[in-house]
Amino acid sequence: MKRIAFIGTGLMGLPMAINLLKKNYPLSAFSRTLSKAEPIKKFGGHVSNSIEEAVTNADVIITMLTDDSAVDTVMKDDKFLNNIKSKATVIDMSSVKPETAKFHSDNLKLKNINYLDAPVSGGTIGAEEASLAIMVGGEEEIFNENFEILNVMGNPTLVGPVTSGQVSKLANQIIVGLTIGAVAEAVTLCERAGANPKKMIKALTGGWADSKILQTHGLRMIAKDFTPKGKTSTHLKDMNNILGCAKNFNVHLPISTLVKDMYNTLVKNGHGNEDHSSLYKEIERINKK
Amino acid sequence: MKRIAFIGTGLMGLPMAINLLKKNYPLSAFSRTLSKAEPIKKFGGHVSNSIEEAVTNADVIITMLTDDSAVDTVMKDDKFLNNIKSKATVIDMSSVKPETAKFHSDNLKLKNINYLDAPVSGGTIGAEEASLAIMVGGEEEIFNENFEILNVMGNPTLVGPVTSGQVSKLANQIIVGLTIGAVAEAVTLCERAGANPKKMIKALTGGWADSKILQTHGLRMIAKDFTPKGKTSTHLKDMNNILGCAKNFNVHLPISTLVKDMYNTLVKNGHGNEDHSSLYKEIERINKK
Repeated sequence: MKRIAFIGTGLMGLPMAINLLKKNYPLSAFSRTLSKAEPIKKFGGHVSNSIEEAVTNADVIITMLTDDSAVDTVMKDDKFLNNIKSKATVIDMSSVKPETAKFHSDNLKLKNINYLDAPVSGGTIGAEEASLAIMVGGEEEIFNENFEILNVMGNPTLVGPVTSGQVSKLANQIIVGLTIGAVAEAVTLCERAGANPKKMIKALTGGWADSKILQTHGLRMIAKDFTPKGKTSTHLKDMNNILGCAKNFNVHLPISTLVKDMYNTLVKNGHGNEDHSSLYKEIERINKK
Repeated sequence: MKRIAFIGTGLMGLPMAINLLKKNYPLSAFSRTLSKAEPIKKFGGHVSNSIEEAVTNADVIITMLTDDSAVDTVMKDDKFLNNIKSKATVIDMSSVKPETAKFHSDNLKLKNINYLDAPVSGGTIGAEEASLAIMVGGEEEIFNENFEILNVMGNPTLVGPVTSGQVSKLANQIIVGLTIGAVAEAVTLCERAGANPKKMIKALTGGWADSKILQTHGLRMIAKDFTPKGKTSTHLKDMNNILGCAKNFNVHLPISTLVKDMYNTLVKNGHGNEDHSSLYKEIERINKK
């Protein structure tokens, strides 16, 4: 079986690494905060004291880090770059800008190291249940070689060449953000026009307007419960990355631009640490004028 | 069993009336174009030659007409109003403005006739399969009295007082229209940034961004197949009704306003008779500038 190095055992990475261990993959984990990797020992995993120890001899190096800067720090580290063996594959499962993925792919290719960008959607529950949607960019051969490993963590789909995984993640976030906006306006209209929004959601169940967002984020709006599952500030970062990517390809996305502006105002007004369904509050604010 | 008068046996009304006949409800149908009602005879239905003949002695009068003006013509007709017996119930399953529903409800109440607004979502397939989402506004007692009849045609939910059904239908159309916009922007970004949009949809299946709209309208956009299932011009009418209702309640809905403007431009540019997924073409047009 392929030897795996797993870099970044946070809220998402830890259950993903545990799922690999449960399938008996030999796995060494490294985390900037070493204690975060400790729980994998119970599942037969090894905790490395350094990044070079983790990657030396690994066939597959999985990174699952918070953002572009955290991934850059690892991928530009000589201790990382110089200790990965030739023909090994780096799979970056973090959500980063497409151009960041391209840069790392090109840089690793110089050392004869393969690369896949493979961001995920599904949150910590998806990570635990191994039901993550895994959007993959890279060469078909490399994807096929690593399919089994990815399949242990969720449902991998090869979308296209390197960066396609990250572009698909942005597409995912467009749809999630704009659907939250749609549900927020639908709930607001019902509340103002005297229809029971909870019963509206029940009535729409199974129809064309139905979605996970309607059933979960819609109910959060009605309950005014904005305890963060996905943070507003994170979604603003995603919306900015979407429009940054669009700009790189000379594409104007009018609805995404509007919703980005709404998330921006929401964060400026102090709602950054609330759930992204709090976009409802921005509709509320506009209507208080 | 309750005797039913069914007014309007068009693409939607005909299969709905047939479903009632299959459950052995005595049913008289009337259609402005009488030939449209003929097929119900095969199922034991009676075709009335006049609206007064259809409604006389009926316990429940169902209307399923194209728009506000068609419903007004029927509901303001003395031959209709003066031949419905006291305590009968008019169920308007057409999609009309909430204020239109309120007007008819008030008007019928003067004659001691009950009223429910009960628009549907699900299209001709939902009508045939009796799987329509039926959004109902009215008094709970009247809803309960007519639940069985509604249940024959789909899944009825009482959302609130009279007009709540129509408000829910508008909420439905907000979500459908804005989700089409979201999917159009996601598909466009993938196409421009070199990710395969069809594989993107596959990758997103089962995740937070998944929906019927993604799976059907998304694929229509990728195939550039805009054969009308739901027409752009109809969705523009819906978006105008949404913003009209919002205005009546002093609510500003920024995303719906933008998407209405986009549908408006699309219709002005000659795409009114195409499928509402052709909103994709408006994103395309903006990016050709």
